[in-house]
Amino acid sequence: MRLTFLGTGGVWAAPVHGCTCAACEAARADPSRARAPASALLEVAGLRLLIDAGRTDLVDRFPPRSLDGVLLTHFHGDHCLGLTLMRWSMAEPLPVWCPHDPRGYDDLTKHPGRLRFLTCAAGDAFCIGPVTVTPVALIHSRPTLGWVIAHGAQRIAYLSDTRGLPDATFATLETAPLDLVVLDCAYPPGAPDPRGHNDLDEADALLAQLAPRDARLTHINHDLDQYAAVSGIVCGIAQDHETVDVG
Amino acid sequence: MRLTFLGTGGVWAAPVHGCTCAACEAARADPSRARAPASALLEVAGLRLLIDAGRTDLVDRFPPRSLDGVLLTHFHGDHCLGLTLMRWSMAEPLPVWCPHDPRGYDDLTKHPGRLRFLTCAAGDAFCIGPVTVTPVALIHSRPTLGWVIAHGAQRIAYLSDTRGLPDATFATLETAPLDLVVLDCAYPPGAPDPRGHNDLDEADALLAQLAPRDARLTHINHDLDQYAAVSGIVCGIAQDHETVDVG
Repeated sequence: MRLTFLGTGGVWAAPVHGCTCAACEAARADPSRARAPASALLEVAGLRLLIDAGRTDLVDRFPPRSLDGVLLTHFHGDHCLGLTLMRWSMAEPLPVWCPHDPRGYDDLTKHPGRLRFLTCAAGDAFCIGPVTVTPVALIHSRPTLGWVIAHGAQRIAYLSDTRGLPDATFATLETAPLDLVVLDCAYPPGAPDPRGHNDLDEADALLAQLAPRDARLTHINHDLDQYAAVSGIVCGIAQDHETVDVG
Repeated sequence: MRLTFLGTGGVWAAPVHGCTCAACEAARADPSRARAPASALLEVAGLRLLIDAGRTDLVDRFPPRSLDGVLLTHFHGDHCLGLTLMRWSMAEPLPVWCPHDPRGYDDLTKHPGRLRFLTCAAGDAFCIGPVTVTPVALIHSRPTLGWVIAHGAQRIAYLSDTRGLPDATFATLETAPLDLVVLDCAYPPGAPDPRGHNDLDEADALLAQLAPRDARLTHINHDLDQYAAVSGIVCGIAQDHETVDVG
């Protein structure tokens, strides 16, 4: 399995419009340090699966027949804005596995165009070819699912957006070793108002409990980038376009 | 007054994903022929006003203090998607004049961030510095306003999205000469299902009645581009990045 981060940022990722903090100025001066909305491309067993779709250039990135489906964690704009554009297409239908959320995102599920929304429930595993996907519940301000993706003995968990993890999700995650965990971490330690996202201390504690072979933090906001630059703690913070090979 | 088209396309503008028609192939081969979502920048009396905000790169195009406001015709995604990104900003507040539409676009008006939505009613003119803006009702699937912008003796009308025009709008438009009319025209003549947009015959008839000094058609879909290429009728069809000077 190969996971490539297409984005690792939160809504307040560097560079934030109008912000002159060191992290935002650095991202403005060097676009390779800017963070697009948190999302990833998973390549496994000849399949190409998109995890989240907040980037608005997905129509250009993925021509017809270049994607086998989308695993959508939830219906916030920074995770599904690209779908509002990808739907207008004459290409083959594209399955989008997603949580049950009647509100959706504006008219996205009412006028899905090319997209085929397939509602999933936590714990109800399904197969995409030889790959087994198990949705797990996350803790966020909207119905949100993480994705545990298994192929042979390899096992990846993508867990964003969330603050903490429900017990049932821990139970699913701990049934077998995890090769890679990608975890929400939007804030530096002690963020005053960590709405729906982990801060760095919370993310570290969750990873200590899950003990995966490898881990990356995603959904990074500019204040965490600034904290990491000052403190020198950059280990585990994912970068846009970074690729992680598993197995 | 100077009007620059930032986009002249409809939702089905060339290149449509997965479409191999001549217009879409031409736009794919030559990106200067591609059409972004219909929108424009109006520069007048030292002010810079954005008309519609469907482009998703507006955050990068307009740094702090480079815009004085947005005239939003309606809350469809291809006209306001860029606002969902522009709101997360530390720059100065940005006024957005818009129609009364309680539905809005997903959570855009609930979480406006930097944006200050100012609801307008057709016929109730207001001033932005020395510029007078008169909202006029259009005929579309959502509450939609056109904008008549006057500075001194110069007068521009931006009329998209619409199919036809209400009598009251004609009455407002005909009170004084029009230097430039920008009009919705999404389809070739006789389109089978022209939902909420003019076809070319309808647009031509409206322009004949309004008799402006100059006119441009916008919100062009790929089938109109293909029709225009075959028929040789390109006169009046706006192009992205085209600039029209008035006065």
